[in-house]
Amino acid sequence: MKLTTLDIAGTTTAAVAVGADAFLPLDAPDLGTLLAAGDWRQRAEAALASAAAPVRLDDDGVRIAALVPRAGKVVCCGLNYADHITEMGRDLPQYPTLFAKFADTLTGPGDDITVTESTQVDWEAELAVVVGRTLSGADEAEAEAAIAGFSVANDISMRDWQRRTLQWFQGKAFDASTPVGPVMVTADAVESTEFAGDGFTVRGYVNGELVQEGRTRTLVFGPAKLLSYISRFTTLRPGDLILTGTPGGVGMGMMPPRFLRDGDVVVTEIDGIGRLENRVHLPV
Amino acid sequence: MKLTTLDIAGTTTAAVAVGADAFLPLDAPDLGTLLAAGDWRQRAEAALASAAAPVRLDDDGVRIAALVPRAGKVVCCGLNYADHITEMGRDLPQYPTLFAKFADTLTGPGDDITVTESTQVDWEAELAVVVGRTLSGADEAEAEAAIAGFSVANDISMRDWQRRTLQWFQGKAFDASTPVGPVMVTADAVESTEFAGDGFTVRGYVNGELVQEGRTRTLVFGPAKLLSYISRFTTLRPGDLILTGTPGGVGMGMMPPRFLRDGDVVVTEIDGIGRLENRVHLPV
Repeated sequence: MKLTTLDIAGTTTAAVAVGADAFLPLDAPDLGTLLAAGDWRQRAEAALASAAAPVRLDDDGVRIAALVPRAGKVVCCGLNYADHITEMGRDLPQYPTLFAKFADTLTGPGDDITVTESTQVDWEAELAVVVGRTLSGADEAEAEAAIAGFSVANDISMRDWQRRTLQWFQGKAFDASTPVGPVMVTADAVESTEFAGDGFTVRGYVNGELVQEGRTRTLVFGPAKLLSYISRFTTLRPGDLILTGTPGGVGMGMMPPRFLRDGDVVVTEIDGIGRLENRVHLPV
Repeated sequence: MKLTTLDIAGTTTAAVAVGADAFLPLDAPDLGTLLAAGDWRQRAEAALASAAAPVRLDDDGVRIAALVPRAGKVVCCGLNYADHITEMGRDLPQYPTLFAKFADTLTGPGDDITVTESTQVDWEAELAVVVGRTLSGADEAEAEAAIAGFSVANDISMRDWQRRTLQWFQGKAFDASTPVGPVMVTADAVESTEFAGDGFTVRGYVNGELVQEGRTRTLVFGPAKLLSYISRFTTLRPGDLILTGTPGGVGMGMMPPRFLRDGDVVVTEIDGIGRLENRVHLPV
C-alpha cells in the first residue's frame, strides 16, 4: 500500500495510491494525522474497496505535498553508511550522529527548491522512515514494529551555513529545502522484497548524472536501531520522520567541491519506493 | 503584562497574571496559540479590566505548564556570552552556533525533571525570547518589534549524550528536561528598565549555591540579532522560542566537572522576569 499527502487547490489531504498517478483522498488533512488515527490501514483499505473516482496528478491544482507536512519531529542521522565511512578511512561510529529539522524544512517531491542565502547548495539522497506508533524507550523489535513505512528524501544542505559553526542545524534547516515523498510504501509491502534482502538502493542524480549510490544494508544504524535509540531520549509519534543518512558522493566531498547551480535538477530514487525530482533555483 | 500557560486539571489554557500567584484564563489553549491570534494584548487587557475571579496556583489541580508547550520551533544559541568566551581565551564568533529542540523537550517552571538515561546532567541558565509575529528575512529592527516578550529557561544538558558525537542535539533533546517560564513578561514592560540598560542578569543556583551569573548586555548575539539571523533561513512564528545561550559556570566547565545528583534543586532566575525551581530525579 502506498500513502501520501496531496495538495488539492491549496488544501492538503491524506490519500492512498490506486495507480501510478492516481489517488483516493482519505478523511485526514495529511499523512501524519492519518497515521495518528490508528485505523489508517482499515480506512485506506475501505477506500480502495470503494468505487470512488480517483484524483489524478494531471488534474488541475493537484500536486503531491511534502509527505508529512506537519511532522512534529524530523530527526536526521549523519555519517551512517559503513562503506562510505570506511572508504574515508574512519572508524565506524559507536553512536548515531543526530540532528533535527523542523517541518517547515520539508517540501514536495516535485517542488522547485529556491535558496537565496547560500552559494554552496549540496545534495544528500536518503532513505526516510515514517513512524507509525508512539515509541518511548523502545527496544529494536518494538521499534521495527512501529515503522509505518519508507519514503525517499533529499537532505539538501547549505554547506557554507552548515560549516559556519560546529553545529550543522543552520545549514540543514532552510525552509522548503528537503523534498520527501512521493509516497510512503507501507512496511508490510517491502519486508519480503528489497528491505529484507540486500536493503534498498538509494541513488542521487544531478542533471541526469549518477552522483550517489548506496545500499541500506550497509547502514551502521538501520531503521529499527535508529528509532530505538532516539526513543530512549524523546518520544516518537505517528507521522514523525527519520532520515537515515546519505551514502558517499555528495558535492562537498568532490575534488574540487561541486555545488548546485541555478536550474540544476536533482533526482533522488529508491527502487520499489519512489523518485523525487526537484529543480533548484539560486537567484543570487 | 505577564502571560503564561496554566495547566488546570490536565487541560492547558493561556492566562494573564493579576498578582504574584493569581491568573485570569484567556480563551486559547496555550500562550503560543494566544500569540498567533494577533489580538492577544486586547484580549488580555479585556480580561484584566473584567471582574473575573482569578485562578490561584494554590488551587487544587492548578500549575504553570511549559510556557509554550506546543512551540513549533525552539532554536537555541550556544557560546553567546562574550565575557565567558573571552575568559576561555577564545575569539568572539562571527556567526551564532544554533541547534534545535522540539516542544516535547520543554517542561514547567516548577516541574520535577526525571532523567533515567544520563549520568552527566548539567545546568544552563538562559534568557528565553518568545516570538510574537511571523518573521522571514527580517532585519534587526523588524525582529526586535516581533519580540512578544522574555522568559527564563534552563537548557538542562546531558553531557554524556551531548558529547557522543559532533552534534549536540541528542544531549539537548531529552523529553521534559528544559524548564521554561514561569511567565512571559511582555517586551513593552521591560524596555524601559532592565533590558535597555545593562541587560538582564541571569543567575543559576544548585541547592542554593550561586553557580552562574551573566548579564545579557554581554551577549554576542542579542535577541534581535538572533531572531533576524534565524529568520534568514527559516520562518519564525508566534509562540516560537529562542534560547539565547548560557553564561559561564556550568558544571562541565568545573575542575573537576560537577554534575547534578538525584534530588538536587536547580533554580534559574532573571530579575524582573521570573524564577524556575526544578528538582532533578536521577533514578539510575
